[in-house]
Amino acid sequence: MFKKVCIIGCGLIGSSLARAMKEKNLAEKIASSNRSNLINKKVIELKIVDESSSETEKMVVGSDLIIIATPLSSYEEVILKIKDSLKSGCILTDVGSVKGIILNLIEKHIPENVSWIPSHPIAGTEESGPEAGFSELFKNRWCILTPSKNAKKKEINLLKDFWEKIGSKVDIMEAKKHDHILSITSHIPHLVAYNIVSTSLNIQDEKKSEIVKYSASGLRDFTRIAASNPIMWRDIFIQNKKNTSEMVDKFINNLEELKKAIENEDEKKLEKIFSKTKKIRKDIVEAGQDIDKPNFGRK
Amino acid sequence: MFKKVCIIGCGLIGSSLARAMKEKNLAEKIASSNRSNLINKKVIELKIVDESSSETEKMVVGSDLIIIATPLSSYEEVILKIKDSLKSGCILTDVGSVKGIILNLIEKHIPENVSWIPSHPIAGTEESGPEAGFSELFKNRWCILTPSKNAKKKEINLLKDFWEKIGSKVDIMEAKKHDHILSITSHIPHLVAYNIVSTSLNIQDEKKSEIVKYSASGLRDFTRIAASNPIMWRDIFIQNKKNTSEMVDKFINNLEELKKAIENEDEKKLEKIFSKTKKIRKDIVEAGQDIDKPNFGRK
Repeated sequence: MFKKVCIIGCGLIGSSLARAMKEKNLAEKIASSNRSNLINKKVIELKIVDESSSETEKMVVGSDLIIIATPLSSYEEVILKIKDSLKSGCILTDVGSVKGIILNLIEKHIPENVSWIPSHPIAGTEESGPEAGFSELFKNRWCILTPSKNAKKKEINLLKDFWEKIGSKVDIMEAKKHDHILSITSHIPHLVAYNIVSTSLNIQDEKKSEIVKYSASGLRDFTRIAASNPIMWRDIFIQNKKNTSEMVDKFINNLEELKKAIENEDEKKLEKIFSKTKKIRKDIVEAGQDIDKPNFGRK
Repeated sequence: MFKKVCIIGCGLIGSSLARAMKEKNLAEKIASSNRSNLINKKVIELKIVDESSSETEKMVVGSDLIIIATPLSSYEEVILKIKDSLKSGCILTDVGSVKGIILNLIEKHIPENVSWIPSHPIAGTEESGPEAGFSELFKNRWCILTPSKNAKKKEINLLKDFWEKIGSKVDIMEAKKHDHILSITSHIPHLVAYNIVSTSLNIQDEKKSEIVKYSASGLRDFTRIAASNPIMWRDIFIQNKKNTSEMVDKFINNLEELKKAIENEDEKKLEKIFSKTKKIRKDIVEAGQDIDKPNFGRK
């Protein structure tokens, strides 16, 4: 599909992409670039890329597809490094979770004959690093593309094909819409998970063992999400801060209302709210977006 | 272990207890009582109890162990029905998630020669009803006993043995302490999950399909908990309303602080909080309280 692909940042997502490309034979050659030479060595050892070096500007040379898979806060540094080495006609994409700011940031810097098409594969686990990746990560997951205004139609279709070949379903939308929807389905759930785990730790700092002990009663579910990559999530919240703030306010208003209903022992209101939220679980399982087993199939 | 056990309310927990008792041979006879005759018929069909009827006062006659497994709001009605049919020397227990109020409520009504020892098995799934139960539900899970002051030492040990035989680890503590800890590890996580799912539904009521579609990015985890039994949780929040309110206030204060840090782009502070919450996940997995696989082992 591509002669050469360069992945900048072989963490969970980048290394999973490399594995998926190898498995599906989507690139004749895969290069990667990582800041740490330990990682550059590791990805060669793992045989998921063909060459790897911290000299990003060299690794991208001749690539038909370049994938930025580093934290959002590093994009400016990355694009300044590679902009003069980009092959004419290539596709530049990324895998970041916020689109608005980086869409414009990169657009400012790249030559016109490069198709800049940001991607957001909605897939991941709480683990990080090249060893945590696996080729099936994108299977049955949505990937959202938010093409820049200069991206060529043909290249958008090619990138869409690429994601579909590794198992994803693709949607194309405006960056602004993406950032709003994802703040609801992803960013606020993560922020709330971080906050509930952090609040629990604060309260029982000296009795932490008791939280761990009784965590199977609800808290453990939140600790999975709250174990996600701290740098990645720091950047996501900051880049999507307007939507995050608005959503946090709505969330807090509703929580205050729930609290009032509890204090007033308003049984009817509570039952109504808790019954409404029950239904959506079924929809999610039916849409193939979660496992059809109680307790996520845990034993 | 017991000649006769009576389970009042064969939902997820009650029916799982019946199955575990059958499997481990812990009772010569198991009776159950359910309001609905459909359920009384169903549990006989499932062969998990030996007799079942809505006449609770008849079912408890001659029982050495009576387990109340109905919603907390029904306890008063249940105890008034059965108090004159309780066998001298029997153990009365329950499986409710809040202990303070019901401890005193039942104590007021029972004869002195009955050992009232509330239990809280910290186990469950998001499903409800007798068909959702399974005998392994309590394996490796903690069960907390909060004995009433008149409960006999011998009977407390017997009940402890009972829970251990079906796979649980047992802790004994004051009801007040229980209600405080569980508000952190269970009640607030559930309230927050209900609230985040409910908030998402409010915002996108007309575009619900998009929430479902992109839910794998975080929200889906919360929808599992928010699919739990509405009546059960309504009762839990109301019975533990003091702790719930206090915890909600702390949670909101911390969330406001996080929001401020995001608005101020305070990278250091965010990174510090998100790194701290990462550690507890490892502790929970090491304590055997969650599965040792990324993404709860979901594919």
